[in-house]
Amino acid sequence: MLKPRWSDLDAYNHVNNVTWLEYLQEARVDMLFVHAPARGAEGLAEGVLVVRAEIDYRRAMVFRQDPYPIEMWVSRIGGASFTISYEIVDDDGSGRRVVYGQASTVLAPVDSDSGRPRRLHEIERAVLGRFTD
Amino acid sequence: MLKPRWSDLDAYNHVNNVTWLEYLQEARVDMLFVHAPARGAEGLAEGVLVVRAEIDYRRAMVFRQDPYPIEMWVSRIGGASFTISYEIVDDDGSGRRVVYGQASTVLAPVDSDSGRPRRLHEIERAVLGRFTD
Amino acid sequence: MLKPRWSDLDAYNHVNNVTWLEYLQEARVDMLFVHAPARGAEGLAEGVLVVRAEIDYRRAMVFRQDPYPIEMWVSRIGGASFTISYEIVDDDGSGRRVVYGQASTVLAPVDSDSGRPRRLHEIERAVLGRFTD
Amino acid sequence: MLKPRWSDLDAYNHVNNVTWLEYLQEARVDMLFVHAPARGAEGLAEGVLVVRAEIDYRRAMVFRQDPYPIEMWVSRIGGASFTISYEIVDDDGSGRRVVYGQASTVLAPVDSDSGRPRRLHEIERAVLGRFTD
Repeated sequence: MLKPRWSDLDAYNHVNNVTWLEYLQEARVDMLFVHAPARGAEGLAEGVLVVRAEIDYRRAMVFRQDPYPIEMWVSRIGGASFTISYEIVDDDGSGRRVVYGQASTVLAPVDSDSGRPRRLHEIERAVLGRFTD
Repeated sequence: MLKPRWSDLDAYNHVNNVTWLEYLQEARVDMLFVHAPARGAEGLAEGVLVVRAEIDYRRAMVFRQDPYPIEMWVSRIGGASFTISYEIVDDDGSGRRVVYGQASTVLAPVDSDSGRPRRLHEIERAVLGRFTD
Repeated sequence: MLKPRWSDLDAYNHVNNVTWLEYLQEARVDMLFVHAPARGAEGLAEGVLVVRAEIDYRRAMVFRQDPYPIEMWVSRIGGASFTISYEIVDDDGSGRRVVYGQASTVLAPVDSDSGRPRRLHEIERAVLGRFTD
Repeated sequence: MLKPRWSDLDAYNHVNNVTWLEYLQEARVDMLFVHAPARGAEGLAEGVLVVRAEIDYRRAMVFRQDPYPIEMWVSRIGGASFTISYEIVDDDGSGRRVVYGQASTVLAPVDSDSGRPRRLHEIERAVLGRFTD
């Protein structure tokens, strides 16, 4: 759930395409900084690099009072990286699902001291596993 | 060429991954709003939707006085969309090429009155063709 | 009430001083685009220029889950401009009021066709009057 | 000198009023992080808090290829703070001076270890003194 800010709008009066990635980042930070540490994977809050991002824009987001729902799940867990997939999706008021966009980001944990990529710890893999769904 | 702003930095003291897309957007705006219209393709300045973006992050960008060079070319021209590819790449001072990231965006021209996607005009295809490198 | 985004942080890990004005803008937009039109002053939603802003920073804002409360009131109503005052203020958990910052912005309505400053309408003065306090 | 980005525009197609403070910040960072350290006042690059800002908006800035010139000078040097004044000002093409806005920010150096405000060092006062004018 992310409430658009008026400042997210660009000169076309739409949430700028760049800002969509900011929305995903906020949703991800919430998962990695709040929910994962609460379950024992504090390391993910200390530093995760974005290695790759891809996003498909389906429908413009506008400024509105209601937050946009963001569905998010861990779609791949590798040895030294994992992938989060996202869907910005809403109900159109009559029960029909409206997809605004779909995206995924490949993330790699880094050692907080050296700043270098590291392998995922066992507890981190377990915690991420609960977000696969 | 894009000069980083101090405000582009995130809490890790790096140019935030989201802001990379802003850099690409600025480079693209320069091509579509300035260079393309100068060659007869004014329509591209009136409205182009980003349909898809993908980006690979290879190396962190930091705050520095020198602008980051952005290489950019049209890598595909379709009937109603085209793709721009980008490389943020620099010389490491000793003549070696350092790649910070690679990206591409699929773009679709929209009719400025209706806001609906439209096909590329012949002149637009010709002008984009000159940017294929 | 404004929930900080992780992307609001600067390299010092604080909500950047520039972003504070964005918070005020969001609070103001909410008043002028939503609450004022609902009471008959639609014109204020069509265009209001910021003529002057001043802000005193008292205490750093950080990234947190709880939104920061923003108190806001109309502190002056002139012929062709008005002033909104703001206080970002919170409870410290033990009932003591903590002031993060204080600010004010002078705003001038503009004619939506010509884009030129205009006088406040009677209904607008009346609606703004309900936000003094 | 600051080149506007297309992403600086808001839904009114103007450089958003909040972003003006970002322009001032970039100009200031350039003075404090680059020019002041080169003259012996490295401490100012390690941390300076913005204590107060005020800005008068006179004329809209738009997206354009030419950077906007920002004039900047130290207008006050106190014991534990100093003030930088700014003017965004341009030539209108026929030699007439066009003022876009005027601003000032009160800044306080902080100790980089404790993060607490501290007094200005003698060398810092001397270096700042060269930017009065």
